[in-house]
Amino acid sequence: MNNTPAELTVAVAGATGAVGRSMLKTLEARAFPASRVVALASSRSAGSKLPFKDTELTVRELTRNSFDGVDLALFSAGGECSRDFAPHAVAAGCVVVDNSNAWRMDERCPLVVPEVNPQALEEHNGIIGNPNCSTIQMVVALKPLHDAASITRVVVSTYQAVSGSGQKAVDELESQVRRMFNMQEPEAKVYPHRIAFNCLPQIDVFMPNGYTREEMKMTLETVKIMGDPSIKVTATTVRVPVFYGHSESVNIETRKKLSAKEARAILSRAPGVQVADNPELKIYPMPIDAAGEYEVFVGRIREDESIANGLNLWVVADNILKGAALNAVQISELLLEKNLLRVKNPRLFLQDA
Amino acid sequence: MNNTPAELTVAVAGATGAVGRSMLKTLEARAFPASRVVALASSRSAGSKLPFKDTELTVRELTRNSFDGVDLALFSAGGECSRDFAPHAVAAGCVVVDNSNAWRMDERCPLVVPEVNPQALEEHNGIIGNPNCSTIQMVVALKPLHDAASITRVVVSTYQAVSGSGQKAVDELESQVRRMFNMQEPEAKVYPHRIAFNCLPQIDVFMPNGYTREEMKMTLETVKIMGDPSIKVTATTVRVPVFYGHSESVNIETRKKLSAKEARAILSRAPGVQVADNPELKIYPMPIDAAGEYEVFVGRIREDESIANGLNLWVVADNILKGAALNAVQISELLLEKNLLRVKNPRLFLQDA
Repeated sequence: MNNTPAELTVAVAGATGAVGRSMLKTLEARAFPASRVVALASSRSAGSKLPFKDTELTVRELTRNSFDGVDLALFSAGGECSRDFAPHAVAAGCVVVDNSNAWRMDERCPLVVPEVNPQALEEHNGIIGNPNCSTIQMVVALKPLHDAASITRVVVSTYQAVSGSGQKAVDELESQVRRMFNMQEPEAKVYPHRIAFNCLPQIDVFMPNGYTREEMKMTLETVKIMGDPSIKVTATTVRVPVFYGHSESVNIETRKKLSAKEARAILSRAPGVQVADNPELKIYPMPIDAAGEYEVFVGRIREDESIANGLNLWVVADNILKGAALNAVQISELLLEKNLLRVKNPRLFLQDA
Repeated sequence: MNNTPAELTVAVAGATGAVGRSMLKTLEARAFPASRVVALASSRSAGSKLPFKDTELTVRELTRNSFDGVDLALFSAGGECSRDFAPHAVAAGCVVVDNSNAWRMDERCPLVVPEVNPQALEEHNGIIGNPNCSTIQMVVALKPLHDAASITRVVVSTYQAVSGSGQKAVDELESQVRRMFNMQEPEAKVYPHRIAFNCLPQIDVFMPNGYTREEMKMTLETVKIMGDPSIKVTATTVRVPVFYGHSESVNIETRKKLSAKEARAILSRAPGVQVADNPELKIYPMPIDAAGEYEVFVGRIREDESIANGLNLWVVADNILKGAALNAVQISELLLEKNLLRVKNPRLFLQDA
């Protein structure tokens, strides 16, 4: 990264959460050229320690003044926190990459997946949206196919891991299984129903049209990231008893006919994609294989024989990495590379704070 | 049932398996008017005892001569067994309801879901196919919608329970979880990969077109049961770490526009269906609720905004009951009711044996 400033201070807001910890780990693993890293969280976590490189970071309380002297902040502290604090970060001259839902659909904020729409970063105004986990892995797989054959419609059903709801949901699945195996009643606190050995067809809250917010994110964010309102997406999002790794059954219709073989070839050379598609050897993407990996895994690539131009795909990725922390760090790397680590109008978002 | 013969002997072939046991339980629970029930299985299980009503049945070895004096046989002993023995049963004058894949697509054999195509039984030739579990629950939900609005296309993704692979798969999921929670390496024997906390996008073997046999069953059996080759089905079938109950994310396109409200009203009065669709109260079908129940549960009924005439549904049923044993017993009840417990040409299938 040629455009690294001599002194670069990076903050992680929500550093103690599952995604925040993964952000720190990913900054370290990819040797992000920060001269200083600041871990921010709620007052409850202030003072606690987080491992980073060969040392420990002392968590500080996230306040409006946390961003003085900070060049870049990765937010993963929930929508409310992002709405409250991101405008102040920008006002302090800090560029924000926000993992929450707060700014994603705001017209002033680009929504970026580096493999898909890196150009959207060029005109950023200080806050950059990191998309929803389910959307990120889907668009990484769909973009090269869209470029080749023009996708008109997507029918997607997801199989989402509990880690998408944070560490408390990982603990809940584990504790429910342990209790059941010890003949005790499992308790549901994070989810409205038991998740152990069950499927929950609800992720996030319900909207007036009967879809969940998670489902509508996949519909709306896909269009924004792909930059093409002619792509129609209908989604059914489902939580399954898996710890790490989201899976997606994705059906697409294209303007141009694409054979399974052509799609496989296109995806094989696509950035951020790893094709895992050898039925004879029982090779296909699975969440237990994707966990801990950076790539989006695509397999079960088949022509959909129910329509003229259709394909079925099975898309799996680590929801905490590519679905959140890694994508945010990749955006940060791109900001450096493109020399975009600057705020044009520090007061732009203050009216919203 | 008015047409019950004075003496009615029923055999269950494969009585010791998960579905066989459930067949016996369902015959008992629904007070099927058998004067005698014979439990048949491989020589390995011969002599073992199975509970039935207030007594026990001694399992006998399944042979070509097992069906002398038997009026009705429910088979669930695997495809090979059905291919070998069903023709001999028919030759002995016994009507066979077969849960395997062996005869389902044979033109001489009707493939029946009582709520969908009871009329197909009328002209049976001695062997009646009991459809694939995933197909049964889907067509129960789709038939009333097809009647109202003419379904042209179905995109379905399944979330299938391990019990669909028999008791050994139930044991495998449990043992894998126990081992993992005790820091031991989980062993995969029934499935090609670990199923605990994983999703396996493979059910049954792969076909030359890249689909699994399970996926093609959903495509082909749906057309045969619904009696309408204009219904195009594309399926992705996935095993999930759930013990009992298959879930399905079903997207349909119809000739006539159907609102979610209309679909809900139609399904509310459909036979064998229970609508569970109240997002505000977080009510939707889940496998843990469907387990042990007879109905097909339908919820998450939404208009698909990506096309003019489309709906999304979430369909859940007990795969061992409505998906297998219950459907076979319902077919048997219908055979009695319609006075169809007779074999027209006992020699018809002998050439295939």
